[in-house]
Amino acid sequence: MTEPKDTAERRLLPPGPAEWQRRWYEVIFESDTPAGKAFDVALLVAIVVSILVVMLESVEPLAAKYGRAFDIIEWVITLLFTLEFLARMACVAQPTRYVFSFFGVVDLVSLLPTYLSLFVVGADSLLVIRTLRLLRVFRVLKLARHVSESRTLLAALRQTWPKITVFLLVIFCAILISGTVMYLIERDQDSGFENIPISVYWAIVTMTTVGYGDIAPRTDAGRFVAALIMLFGYAVIIVPTGIFSAEVLTSNRGRRKACGACGADELSPHANFCEHCGERV
Amino acid sequence: MTEPKDTAERRLLPPGPAEWQRRWYEVIFESDTPAGKAFDVALLVAIVVSILVVMLESVEPLAAKYGRAFDIIEWVITLLFTLEFLARMACVAQPTRYVFSFFGVVDLVSLLPTYLSLFVVGADSLLVIRTLRLLRVFRVLKLARHVSESRTLLAALRQTWPKITVFLLVIFCAILISGTVMYLIERDQDSGFENIPISVYWAIVTMTTVGYGDIAPRTDAGRFVAALIMLFGYAVIIVPTGIFSAEVLTSNRGRRKACGACGADELSPHANFCEHCGERV
Amino acid sequence: MTEPKDTAERRLLPPGPAEWQRRWYEVIFESDTPAGKAFDVALLVAIVVSILVVMLESVEPLAAKYGRAFDIIEWVITLLFTLEFLARMACVAQPTRYVFSFFGVVDLVSLLPTYLSLFVVGADSLLVIRTLRLLRVFRVLKLARHVSESRTLLAALRQTWPKITVFLLVIFCAILISGTVMYLIERDQDSGFENIPISVYWAIVTMTTVGYGDIAPRTDAGRFVAALIMLFGYAVIIVPTGIFSAEVLTSNRGRRKACGACGADELSPHANFCEHCGERV
Amino acid sequence: MTEPKDTAERRLLPPGPAEWQRRWYEVIFESDTPAGKAFDVALLVAIVVSILVVMLESVEPLAAKYGRAFDIIEWVITLLFTLEFLARMACVAQPTRYVFSFFGVVDLVSLLPTYLSLFVVGADSLLVIRTLRLLRVFRVLKLARHVSESRTLLAALRQTWPKITVFLLVIFCAILISGTVMYLIERDQDSGFENIPISVYWAIVTMTTVGYGDIAPRTDAGRFVAALIMLFGYAVIIVPTGIFSAEVLTSNRGRRKACGACGADELSPHANFCEHCGERV
Repeated sequence: MTEPKDTAERRLLPPGPAEWQRRWYEVIFESDTPAGKAFDVALLVAIVVSILVVMLESVEPLAAKYGRAFDIIEWVITLLFTLEFLARMACVAQPTRYVFSFFGVVDLVSLLPTYLSLFVVGADSLLVIRTLRLLRVFRVLKLARHVSESRTLLAALRQTWPKITVFLLVIFCAILISGTVMYLIERDQDSGFENIPISVYWAIVTMTTVGYGDIAPRTDAGRFVAALIMLFGYAVIIVPTGIFSAEVLTSNRGRRKACGACGADELSPHANFCEHCGERV
Repeated sequence: MTEPKDTAERRLLPPGPAEWQRRWYEVIFESDTPAGKAFDVALLVAIVVSILVVMLESVEPLAAKYGRAFDIIEWVITLLFTLEFLARMACVAQPTRYVFSFFGVVDLVSLLPTYLSLFVVGADSLLVIRTLRLLRVFRVLKLARHVSESRTLLAALRQTWPKITVFLLVIFCAILISGTVMYLIERDQDSGFENIPISVYWAIVTMTTVGYGDIAPRTDAGRFVAALIMLFGYAVIIVPTGIFSAEVLTSNRGRRKACGACGADELSPHANFCEHCGERV
Repeated sequence: MTEPKDTAERRLLPPGPAEWQRRWYEVIFESDTPAGKAFDVALLVAIVVSILVVMLESVEPLAAKYGRAFDIIEWVITLLFTLEFLARMACVAQPTRYVFSFFGVVDLVSLLPTYLSLFVVGADSLLVIRTLRLLRVFRVLKLARHVSESRTLLAALRQTWPKITVFLLVIFCAILISGTVMYLIERDQDSGFENIPISVYWAIVTMTTVGYGDIAPRTDAGRFVAALIMLFGYAVIIVPTGIFSAEVLTSNRGRRKACGACGADELSPHANFCEHCGERV
Repeated sequence: MTEPKDTAERRLLPPGPAEWQRRWYEVIFESDTPAGKAFDVALLVAIVVSILVVMLESVEPLAAKYGRAFDIIEWVITLLFTLEFLARMACVAQPTRYVFSFFGVVDLVSLLPTYLSLFVVGADSLLVIRTLRLLRVFRVLKLARHVSESRTLLAALRQTWPKITVFLLVIFCAILISGTVMYLIERDQDSGFENIPISVYWAIVTMTTVGYGDIAPRTDAGRFVAALIMLFGYAVIIVPTGIFSAEVLTSNRGRRKACGACGADELSPHANFCEHCGERV
């Protein structure tokens, strides 16, 4: 009997009191035992198959030919997912907590479209929400480590957030102003700058260097301003990259010692004395 | 009664001498009090609404349907902004200093287009200058910290400026030469390289990797040169990114204490004791 | 008689016992002697010529004019490569080990298409696999150093892999979901979003900022969602760049000596004396 | 009388022996005196004007209207540049050394097209080579500092070159192979993949994320392979960025002490003892 200990989800959902609940919990929610791992892999396969079916069903020639097979696969998988959902509820001590956890909501929402499709046309396209279930892959591939990795990333993002906010606000104003200026210049041409929202869309397409070309300036003035916008967009991408790189590096270096006397962590790994209480480490 | 102390704008614009001026100043220019915060949030909402109205008014079907409503909203907001502008002038000791400060100019200029639109057709598109008023958002979201963040960024940019200038000059020459070479190669084709300025525009569109495709080489020689230009453009983006990343990191690290006893620098800025000799810093 | 020592390939393939085998091995597998270097350069030239011939043969006007010459060059080079392959097998102690090494497989596979083209039409396009033989250039250009360089890179990639996996999974889900959402919005337009796989293709084209423009949203809702996707794609490119930059820097720094006397680490790898206490390292 | 000392060009070109040569040299080759600065600024203005004239002359409506004026300006500037070239030769000790220096060649070559245009039609488009003369701007804008900055950059590039070579070779092979694979898949479609060189051009356009869209895959298989190529191209841009960022940072940190005893430079700025000879710094 293992103690769930390394992920937020597990801590929120301790196994129910009965012996069979503990065993089911081990298989369904964990992946340390062979059975648990096999369950998770089977689940991932089912998720991938269900997403593939939704995608292929949208391709007309395939839908015409294999539509019936797709429907059957979809219903079989949906029934399996329903059973899985019920089993998950059955083996945790507090089912409501599971239902309202992130994965609980995703599990539930990814079931609904198939049932809804009995009543509403087109609802089964929503099945793509099942994509989110792929995030369960973290469990299978040595989850704990990956989760701690992504926590480092999130910490670096949180650290850099204020700086990046300043930067994003400047970009946002630049996009609005560029879009409007281009609208004023190009509106009488037949070049696609029909109104300010479309021009702002063009400014986003241009600044992110996507550049579809369905809307493109034709006047000399328009092209001149567009060139300035591109050079500006090209220049600014370096700013957040620099900020973020520096932050990741700083947090990488932060595998720090702790002081036995005062409990301060975050000491330099080269420290001989605690910088807070002066005690020898 | 608070002392304005943490932003350049506040220091430049101390409240006027009368008691009501101090109270107004607190509400209008600061955001530490509930009233001040409420005022700033209301102002931001009004700015966003006014920008949205300008944008939507440029969409023909919406203008046809709601044109009258848009006009009314615009006039109401402009009148409110006018009152706000007068109030700002009334409660500072030196109104002219406010009028000629950055936000003073923005506030004034963002009022004019509506009034001008009574006499000049199309002037109200200039209303987009109100976008700049969005920068007031810094005040609402714990301004002081953000301003110091952007100062760090500006310092890093200033530090890297000479290096980036060298780099930009090389890029600039490369763009001019590429554009002309492509003009010489492609001018007799019907591929859009009509004259050197347009070819230079193409070189910018290509080097920034936007790539609309409205102008694209068709001859073999043109495509060969274009491929070289793209590979060059792709290679050079890493240069300023590297320069800037290194600079941000260096300036991140630059807030370190030094120990008076053993001379170790590079101590954490939060250290009370030297981590090398244990001496109190 | 040199001892093969600095590359994995050489260690796997010691020369055969006979004297002529040793001498051939030196020429064919190594590049320290003038003969060995000349052989390698000649080989690279032959590889480049063979690739050029395959490329030019696909250009119709050239194929019509010089098709016969191309065929002759291809056959001559293929025969030379066949002789080279047999010579390589002849001069190593264990020919099968060579045949199943990376370069052995590449050498063999790059011979087959010409012979196959006698029986199968179009097989000679596979000749492009000869491109992989270009990797032999590492041997000519002071190989040992380059190999150690690329090992550093691979180590940095391996170190950052778990973090980048987390990141890629998020991107992957974002691409699937974006594609499906755009399909739901744009499917009734004639804008190219015909089915979910094509929409997912569009999402990849957009997120990587390639942006061909053959498929582009036309509805207001579609453009709004596309703008969000672009901004998201633009934002996320900074994440892996930051992770990788930090890792390369950390691994750059990781070749430092430590002082036995005072315990200082972070000494330069070229230091003879400790820079802190003056003791010989 | 100043001693030319801080740039390679100046050291190569000492003033001639006569007094007037020294004075001319100061004005023409240096920019420390007011006269020297004024000369350089006037030169830059003339260079910019001459480039603008070449660009505008290629615009047909402008050429038709102002063609005569453009011709006159071009000839006046060319004559001035000729006089300047002769003056430069007159005031240096070894005129041939100037003529064969980088700027000497650029100065001469940028004169020829105008004279050639008397005999050869279209030769004046070559005038764009005058763009290179813009590099003289380094002299005006506190040159010494900029040159040392760009030396740091070049050093970082040289340091990272072997790693980046490995990387570029992999990219190069990937581009060749991608192009050929796409040709094999798409050649029977009317999607522009006419032959392998064009497909390789497409691969470059795609991997650099330029993405014109004039050539784009239409088959399902083609789009699938293209998506893989894009994701690969997107992934690899982070590699050189990381390498270069790390290198710039390392070289930034390298403002190092030198040892008085053994002359070793490149000591750590925190060193107390020389790491080579053990002497106290």
